[in-house]
Amino acid sequence: MDSNPFTFECHATDGQARAGVFHTPHGPIPTPIFAPVGTQATVKAVTPAQLEELGAHLVLSNTYHLFLRPGPDIVAEMGGLHRFMNWPHPILTDSGGFQVFSLTSMRKLDEDGVTFKSHIDGSMQRLTPEISVDVQQKLGADIIMCFDECASPYDRDYVERAMHRTHRWAERCQQAKTRPDQALFGIVQGGVFPDLRQQSAEWIAAQGFPGHAIGGLSVGETKAEMNHMIEVVNAVLPPEKPRYLMGVGSPEDLIHGIWRGVDIFDCVLPTRLARHHAAMTFSGRLNLMNAVNARDPRPIDENCGCYACRHYTRAYLRHLITAKEILAATLISIHNLYTLEELVRQARQAILEGRYQAFAENFLANYRPQPENKSRPA
Amino acid sequence: MDSNPFTFECHATDGQARAGVFHTPHGPIPTPIFAPVGTQATVKAVTPAQLEELGAHLVLSNTYHLFLRPGPDIVAEMGGLHRFMNWPHPILTDSGGFQVFSLTSMRKLDEDGVTFKSHIDGSMQRLTPEISVDVQQKLGADIIMCFDECASPYDRDYVERAMHRTHRWAERCQQAKTRPDQALFGIVQGGVFPDLRQQSAEWIAAQGFPGHAIGGLSVGETKAEMNHMIEVVNAVLPPEKPRYLMGVGSPEDLIHGIWRGVDIFDCVLPTRLARHHAAMTFSGRLNLMNAVNARDPRPIDENCGCYACRHYTRAYLRHLITAKEILAATLISIHNLYTLEELVRQARQAILEGRYQAFAENFLANYRPQPENKSRPA
Repeated sequence: MDSNPFTFECHATDGQARAGVFHTPHGPIPTPIFAPVGTQATVKAVTPAQLEELGAHLVLSNTYHLFLRPGPDIVAEMGGLHRFMNWPHPILTDSGGFQVFSLTSMRKLDEDGVTFKSHIDGSMQRLTPEISVDVQQKLGADIIMCFDECASPYDRDYVERAMHRTHRWAERCQQAKTRPDQALFGIVQGGVFPDLRQQSAEWIAAQGFPGHAIGGLSVGETKAEMNHMIEVVNAVLPPEKPRYLMGVGSPEDLIHGIWRGVDIFDCVLPTRLARHHAAMTFSGRLNLMNAVNARDPRPIDENCGCYACRHYTRAYLRHLITAKEILAATLISIHNLYTLEELVRQARQAILEGRYQAFAENFLANYRPQPENKSRPA
Repeated sequence: MDSNPFTFECHATDGQARAGVFHTPHGPIPTPIFAPVGTQATVKAVTPAQLEELGAHLVLSNTYHLFLRPGPDIVAEMGGLHRFMNWPHPILTDSGGFQVFSLTSMRKLDEDGVTFKSHIDGSMQRLTPEISVDVQQKLGADIIMCFDECASPYDRDYVERAMHRTHRWAERCQQAKTRPDQALFGIVQGGVFPDLRQQSAEWIAAQGFPGHAIGGLSVGETKAEMNHMIEVVNAVLPPEKPRYLMGVGSPEDLIHGIWRGVDIFDCVLPTRLARHHAAMTFSGRLNLMNAVNARDPRPIDENCGCYACRHYTRAYLRHLITAKEILAATLISIHNLYTLEELVRQARQAILEGRYQAFAENFLANYRPQPENKSRPA
């Protein structure tokens, strides 16, 4: 295609880690990159102006939520998601698959798609590969995703069946897609089983997608299993196309994912933690609600350049939290998102300078991770 | 005083209306001005950067709330309220008097002060003129207020007793005040009784305060009564000092207040309405929750230059409201505050150009006010 707006330039590799740029109709995305999540067409408690200032390039929004409310037709009437939510930069929408399998009750799955009960109003709704693509085309994101089935990662029989269905659905998504200004990414499934992951990566890689995602991770498996699956999959996925690890966003997971050749990440973690008063830093998490912060004149992180750290003390943030002020969520969200964007900026620079391993080892040596079973908040 | 940092320059008068500048240690305040309210050391849902962008010059914060939480000593330790809340521009604190009489239960009033039950934790607390000034000196606002007793406006006996006590307390506040970098304003009381208002204004005007406030209005009396009281009081208060109408903030009240010589206003109305989905415009209020907005591609106000109106449709704002997203409160607050700052900017320009009456009449002809008994939200 001579007018393909989606090209991936790899500027440097360092081991498996890569520093590149993925070009989209709404601008270039430097990689590795972390995408803040704007579930309902807004990154919770943060304005687009603040997102730009903190260094975000790509925002993810959820097809499941926008499908139910306000509905894709209204978004399309308003000029598409970029204009609707005032984010003129690249956007990625997921397919709705993950949410259908994690948020809804009364699901009925068949080969054609899934019927489910809306978590908003209890109405019965249906998504199929074709409907998901249609909705995503109306939303108009730069990167859209194949509709997939997310299985419980340890149930081999279920994982294998879901993987094959995901492959069949991926073909249907490719056939349904018509907009040339959107890139449809294929998704690798396969749970925690290396042979299934390899099989899925080979199948997906053969379909000619402009980018590939690793799905079904960070859903209950261990960190070691997750990292192993990334290695297995990335050994297969072609290096000339971007790789997206879906739903992953703790600092240590970003470090490990980049180390293994991942280019794109997204996660609700930074904004969700912020609304639960937890700040993310390069050394670990900090609960700003704790009384010890009441008279602490320091910023969250003395080395951080975000708006919150440049202007506010821990004492003030704790005051906002105890006073139940909205600004607490805004400032801590800005800080947490900045922290992850700064992490990928530093990682990218390290890759460009051929010192990613030292950067990663140094980062991990100074970082105190959460206990594994608490790594994702409720 | 040769180093008095508080000077009031009157650049133009037009009838009773005045355009001036009140100088403070944290910068000049163009008047007439509207002060957004940051009750708990934050204007709800809005950052200081957004306040600067929408044209705010002066922010009010509430002594009652900060006295109870986080406490004035913590604010002082953090360098005072300006640094604590990251507002390097002028700040005004009220005295706590109004909140003690409106928010608390189990009040016990004596000549020395008031004992009351905290609305936060039920603890018994005490404010006196001296404690209020001490707290306000620790907070460190540019403009601080005398501790006053706010009486029910129609009970003449009570109003008269409260007025005299307010006068005695004003003398005690003047004696308690020591910081030269704060201006202590006296407060005129007197309910809806012209003779008491006149008596109070004469007494307060004689005390040599650097500025004067009109208290005890917008608390249940009619608009006609309020405007009459402003006229009575401003006929007495010296024109060479700024006049502050406390707690007033509907567009029509600002127009009428400026017409009668008021320079400073504050009110929670714009931010409170925003959290209840109501947008303020030069033609009246708009409830953005209404279903009619679901597919409306227009901004709140096509003539408005605020961040929300430059970037967002009514359809998007309604989506945020129905999805219970924090950004709804932020964007509508920005719009409402901008609307009032734009109103005072236009009023000031009209005064400078000697056409305030035409401006005010034109404004009121195009403005559909709320029914009187709904003018203040619950």
